[in-house]
Amino acid sequence: MKIVTFLTDFGTVDGYVAAMKGVVVEACPSVQLVDTSHDVPPQNIRAGAWTLRYYWNLFPKGTIHVAVVDPGVGSRRKPLLVNADGRWLIGPDNGLFSWVFETAQRWRAYRIRPTVLRPDAVGQTFQGRDIFAYAAGLLAAGASRKDLADSVVKPIRFDWPKPNIRRRRILGEIIHVDRFGNVISNIPVERVDNNSQTLLISCNQLQIKKLSQFYTSAPGGSTLALCGSSGLLELSVNQGNVAELYGISLGDAVEVRW
Amino acid sequence: MKIVTFLTDFGTVDGYVAAMKGVVVEACPSVQLVDTSHDVPPQNIRAGAWTLRYYWNLFPKGTIHVAVVDPGVGSRRKPLLVNADGRWLIGPDNGLFSWVFETAQRWRAYRIRPTVLRPDAVGQTFQGRDIFAYAAGLLAAGASRKDLADSVVKPIRFDWPKPNIRRRRILGEIIHVDRFGNVISNIPVERVDNNSQTLLISCNQLQIKKLSQFYTSAPGGSTLALCGSSGLLELSVNQGNVAELYGISLGDAVEVRW
Amino acid sequence: MKIVTFLTDFGTVDGYVAAMKGVVVEACPSVQLVDTSHDVPPQNIRAGAWTLRYYWNLFPKGTIHVAVVDPGVGSRRKPLLVNADGRWLIGPDNGLFSWVFETAQRWRAYRIRPTVLRPDAVGQTFQGRDIFAYAAGLLAAGASRKDLADSVVKPIRFDWPKPNIRRRRILGEIIHVDRFGNVISNIPVERVDNNSQTLLISCNQLQIKKLSQFYTSAPGGSTLALCGSSGLLELSVNQGNVAELYGISLGDAVEVRW
Repeated sequence: MKIVTFLTDFGTVDGYVAAMKGVVVEACPSVQLVDTSHDVPPQNIRAGAWTLRYYWNLFPKGTIHVAVVDPGVGSRRKPLLVNADGRWLIGPDNGLFSWVFETAQRWRAYRIRPTVLRPDAVGQTFQGRDIFAYAAGLLAAGASRKDLADSVVKPIRFDWPKPNIRRRRILGEIIHVDRFGNVISNIPVERVDNNSQTLLISCNQLQIKKLSQFYTSAPGGSTLALCGSSGLLELSVNQGNVAELYGISLGDAVEVRW
Repeated sequence: MKIVTFLTDFGTVDGYVAAMKGVVVEACPSVQLVDTSHDVPPQNIRAGAWTLRYYWNLFPKGTIHVAVVDPGVGSRRKPLLVNADGRWLIGPDNGLFSWVFETAQRWRAYRIRPTVLRPDAVGQTFQGRDIFAYAAGLLAAGASRKDLADSVVKPIRFDWPKPNIRRRRILGEIIHVDRFGNVISNIPVERVDNNSQTLLISCNQLQIKKLSQFYTSAPGGSTLALCGSSGLLELSVNQGNVAELYGISLGDAVEVRW
Repeated sequence: MKIVTFLTDFGTVDGYVAAMKGVVVEACPSVQLVDTSHDVPPQNIRAGAWTLRYYWNLFPKGTIHVAVVDPGVGSRRKPLLVNADGRWLIGPDNGLFSWVFETAQRWRAYRIRPTVLRPDAVGQTFQGRDIFAYAAGLLAAGASRKDLADSVVKPIRFDWPKPNIRRRRILGEIIHVDRFGNVISNIPVERVDNNSQTLLISCNQLQIKKLSQFYTSAPGGSTLALCGSSGLLELSVNQGNVAELYGISLGDAVEVRW
């Protein structure tokens, strides 16, 4: 059974997500529909790209990931079909797949043909339903890649903010704040010398002198630095919200010295 | 595999939605469960009816749509089983299916028999679990319509607010505000003469002189009028929230002249 | 087809829930994934336990319930595999399954083996993905209980707040406030003499003199006492929010006299 996942910034108050699901199962009733997130902050392509990065390659090969954060819907931005390490991704060419390209071993992006359009399509404001979900349904039902998209394209990619890594010092930045207020940096923990006696991790007014293994390694209310679930340096307060307590937000500088 | 969808105003903090899903798969384990929306504003039947309108007929024939926005739960309002253009709808008789009846080509509504009641039913406050999900499970498992409901009933229907359409002027109203703050009117775009040099669309202090094709047709922050994804006239601000900026809300008048 | 359900406090803004789903279908592609709730208040184990209580045994035998509200992730708290009345439950040993143990007829809890760890596991902060979802995937794919967990353990259990029941008086407390503001007590309605002429139900400033059958038994805006959907005494305002109106919150005393 084919798996089709959905990431959007549509929320679930309106019927937009439901409409996309309907279009997919109308084309291929035996598919498994999987919600990933519909709470991407509205029109925030970077946030959607980060969320997608977190799960796209944990699903099995053959999975079809539909992702729609699409402020430019209907304009000249291209509709994309991507194959990355055996998974399919379908969505707008606006940078949303940047971290897929960053983390995949092999990928290729194709422009979806203009003929791939739901027969009852209305207006040009909901291509999530009329192009992307429709293409996903056709693909799940057995259409080949060539049926849906032919020309190879060079997609839009954001620059991943690379940390500045020296011998005894790394300069990075905060790239995500999660629901718990944990802040995640772009610094790979494997590059930090955790055995050093002089380790110092700083971000705004926050200073931490060691890496902990898990959130409860320090007493409740204490600040921690850890290896987060993507292998990146993460700052946290045990049972608290470090982002609020220290006023940390996206793009803030993080420094590690030893 | 049968598809059962769920629309409620239950939110997902409590276990109410999960209980309904459990009852369905207990009766028919091989069904596909699909969430449509659980964020209908509490007890807002009209909002639920609008959301349902958006997707009910995009799903394939045979789909079972369970919809529960039910302030009168347990009272004398009837439990309904509806067949509309080959899809099933199950829920309370309180107007929730008004726009299904409005948009279906053929439909018939039946009262669910009093004997259709989950054996372990407790109290009369959660018929979403004890009647509606249970009926959906039985239907998915192969029960016939006659097993579940016999008497044909005339269901409650809200009046769809019809626009006043004249030769060079249409008076309508706002019928929905979506998550992005886009406002949707009851004016069918096909009735608007978009070629007229004197087109003028007004709503509160907002005045727009042409129809655009998509949200990014105007610069960021500019106001737009478009053909929305249901074929209705929609007002929007590119990358902004027109409802907030112009204080537009449900029921506000919209005028189109040319 | 195996059913795997997910309860978390992760929300759906981040990709955490999606990552867990990916790990399950990677191990067993033909499973049915079911969301129950991801909106458990962050790190609130008791709230998660209450939600789980509401649905765990409505699903068919063989269902695998994954539940992760886990402030102590990575610490010495044990990872559990529980069999309760034929359903499986997987999650941390921190009290989250307290009401499952309370309501099950037969149950046994096992410690998941340390070898049950996703091969690509990173860090120790996301065992929902690296241990719990992974164990659920293996179980769905056919692993036996003994493959995953051997030693029987005595799990952590919260004390269920028991009402004080006398001949003509019951003292209880509020144990849940739902999305509609209805407040649910720990008083079993079957123990209340509803035929008494002198029945009096009190909570804070609220006094009610009879049990109603459903929310609309009283006029809009009126207060009600009912048999809730779990068989427990529930207080409500028809089309209103009793918790806000009377300042009722968790742990507040409820008295019934007759």
